[in-house]
Amino acid sequence: MTESFEQLWADLAAIGKDPSTGGYHRGGWTPSERAATAWFLDQCAQRGLVVESDGIGNLVAWWEPGEVARSAGSTRSLPASAQAAGVSSAQGARLPGVVTGSHLDSVIDGGAFDGPLGVVSALSAVDRLRAEGFVPSVPIGVGAFVEEEGSRFGMPCLGSRIATGVLTPEKALALQDRTGVSLADALKDSGADLDRVGPSPLLSRMGTFVELHVEQGRALTAPVGVASSIWPHGRFRFTFTGEANHAGTTLMEDRHDPMLTYAMTALAANKQARLAGARATFGRLAVEPNGTNAVPSQVTAWLDARAASAEVLESLLAAITRQAAERAERDGTAVEMVPESVSPVVDFQPGLRDRLSAVLDGAPVLPTGAGHDAGVFSDAGIPTAMLFVRNPTGISHSPAEHAEMDDCLAGVEALATVLKELAR
Amino acid sequence: MTESFEQLWADLAAIGKDPSTGGYHRGGWTPSERAATAWFLDQCAQRGLVVESDGIGNLVAWWEPGEVARSAGSTRSLPASAQAAGVSSAQGARLPGVVTGSHLDSVIDGGAFDGPLGVVSALSAVDRLRAEGFVPSVPIGVGAFVEEEGSRFGMPCLGSRIATGVLTPEKALALQDRTGVSLADALKDSGADLDRVGPSPLLSRMGTFVELHVEQGRALTAPVGVASSIWPHGRFRFTFTGEANHAGTTLMEDRHDPMLTYAMTALAANKQARLAGARATFGRLAVEPNGTNAVPSQVTAWLDARAASAEVLESLLAAITRQAAERAERDGTAVEMVPESVSPVVDFQPGLRDRLSAVLDGAPVLPTGAGHDAGVFSDAGIPTAMLFVRNPTGISHSPAEHAEMDDCLAGVEALATVLKELAR
Repeated sequence: MTESFEQLWADLAAIGKDPSTGGYHRGGWTPSERAATAWFLDQCAQRGLVVESDGIGNLVAWWEPGEVARSAGSTRSLPASAQAAGVSSAQGARLPGVVTGSHLDSVIDGGAFDGPLGVVSALSAVDRLRAEGFVPSVPIGVGAFVEEEGSRFGMPCLGSRIATGVLTPEKALALQDRTGVSLADALKDSGADLDRVGPSPLLSRMGTFVELHVEQGRALTAPVGVASSIWPHGRFRFTFTGEANHAGTTLMEDRHDPMLTYAMTALAANKQARLAGARATFGRLAVEPNGTNAVPSQVTAWLDARAASAEVLESLLAAITRQAAERAERDGTAVEMVPESVSPVVDFQPGLRDRLSAVLDGAPVLPTGAGHDAGVFSDAGIPTAMLFVRNPTGISHSPAEHAEMDDCLAGVEALATVLKELAR
Repeated sequence: MTESFEQLWADLAAIGKDPSTGGYHRGGWTPSERAATAWFLDQCAQRGLVVESDGIGNLVAWWEPGEVARSAGSTRSLPASAQAAGVSSAQGARLPGVVTGSHLDSVIDGGAFDGPLGVVSALSAVDRLRAEGFVPSVPIGVGAFVEEEGSRFGMPCLGSRIATGVLTPEKALALQDRTGVSLADALKDSGADLDRVGPSPLLSRMGTFVELHVEQGRALTAPVGVASSIWPHGRFRFTFTGEANHAGTTLMEDRHDPMLTYAMTALAANKQARLAGARATFGRLAVEPNGTNAVPSQVTAWLDARAASAEVLESLLAAITRQAAERAERDGTAVEMVPESVSPVVDFQPGLRDRLSAVLDGAPVLPTGAGHDAGVFSDAGIPTAMLFVRNPTGISHSPAEHAEMDDCLAGVEALATVLKELAR
């Protein structure tokens, strides 16, 4: 007998929870993220799902069509460690299937739902289909993709970008976390074979991908919705350079203070995003030398910007950089902007989207401002869809992120319905 | 034969210099600050100066009146390690004397002059007086006081504040650096006896204190000047609290972003300081969670504020906190301000000040916005004066901090003249 959704959810939510904030710090290849991954592998083993992994550590656990008569509670004998190493014991023809899943990593001090809800719902939907005696005509895979948030190595959708080849192994392995540890070193420490990092063999079997995710705004008023598109978005690094000086003795008129240029830029970004109906956020900063009694020499600030279209995003960025440059002129500072990652709009396959909305009794269709592995897979040409579960407060990337249990259960039911539709 | 000023300066300036920035990171009890202190002890030993230390590690190296006939190059046999431990071999009556010196620690990535110039000039002035055959009537001490910048433990003038008793050992030992190491632990690691931390016996012999320091603005146009006063100044911690959220999906209108409240406050501080002819600087920040794709939950910002009078400082601070509170109201955030250290105005003893200006042929008298150990000693009732050496650019607390060698040599000459005046 497999666990109920509620029990699975409670088990996973206990792993790596910060008791002081109630949030999660599950950066890629950190102990708490590894613990969540070990929990996933154990759940797959309990269900006799055959786990395949690729070089970067993306995982897909397969329910093969020939294995439908399994009674609840039966397990394969493959140990989790062998499965984690990518050992597969799948029998017979290896058909493309329907993969559903999400990610187990989190932003810094993030919520419980962003990512894990899609993984737990996928396991629970498989349990439900098996309990109903459903016989899939194609394999159904449960996926968990690594470092989706990019909170450790600064590159969102790291696992799916490497898997699809849009990020080369050379660029990926050279990425560094905030303490200077490279992805290559982190992988080596976890026992991975660096030669296997690259385009993923897992994708050859990903006939369709469906990601269930908690909604991250307040746009969804029904329990479950279907995604239409992902807004174009990007991360842009602004470097404001001035002149370090004594905070007590330097006349205000003699300063070249990059903090002022940054501060005006942050306010300008907010205003421009409001005017454009877009999003602009400065959430990460590094100040040099960051001493109380020194005018800073440099402020580095990362802008997260998103808009409904590439044109609006471009003009938003142009307006922000123009205002930054004007203020820099006034402050006697310099500003440089470097795009760190830019993702174009993702329009999910309209036919698939409409089919899912229809089978879900006309579930609402809505866009999102958040990037997802689903967007990367869609860009790679894999027919992809997303289901959203209602978020009553709209809060996400925060310990306060929440979805009601009834809505989560409605999400599991919707996902099971969708899998039946796609694998019948 | 002792080294020339130029040679002493070059020797000390080589210790702990960051090759990438050209700046110094000499926080208290760090390896580079300890190396500079070891250099100082060695120089004292070479001169046969008897070093006394107190519990926190402040040092005064004495040239006793009975030791005037020493030929250049003669040394005492006391090893530097014994001297560092506070072992004194001073003979005869222990009269109060004239102490001159400064500090060897730096701000984060600071310049070569702020602090070390006063220590090297003191050693060089003693060499000069001895070479002239000057016979002091009272002891002359060369002082080096610890953690003046407060760059490691956040408390400026740490050594002199403990020595004078304005900072209790309990409060001091509990201070933590940015990595969570307490002052108590740092002292223990350096082999200090924590029971000795407290009001310093060194002060009983500090009849007069003179600190030579590089000027830190552009107010001094002569090579050497005399300080009139230190502006009242303080460090104020602003905590801006909002609500962490997803940077991509949260409507701009739904946010409670403390970064915006901070940014407006930083601009307001700058504007208010200009209007008041005062100084206000936000040079240090901490952002939570500091992730690119998360609206921050909290921004902590340290304000350094200084003004010519307590009244102006108070109204400056009131204007900044009022504007911060108004913007917080608008942003749906909260702001809290806590003074971390506040120093009232220091008016150096007018008689002493005028006497030094006169003996220096009418050297200009000017105030400073910078705090110094001299201010702490003056507040403690010790007759205290400061000499400033011209700073052509006004840049300080920066690798670009500079004084011309001719002006430094004029500073040594002025300090020797002052010591002769005070110890004749």
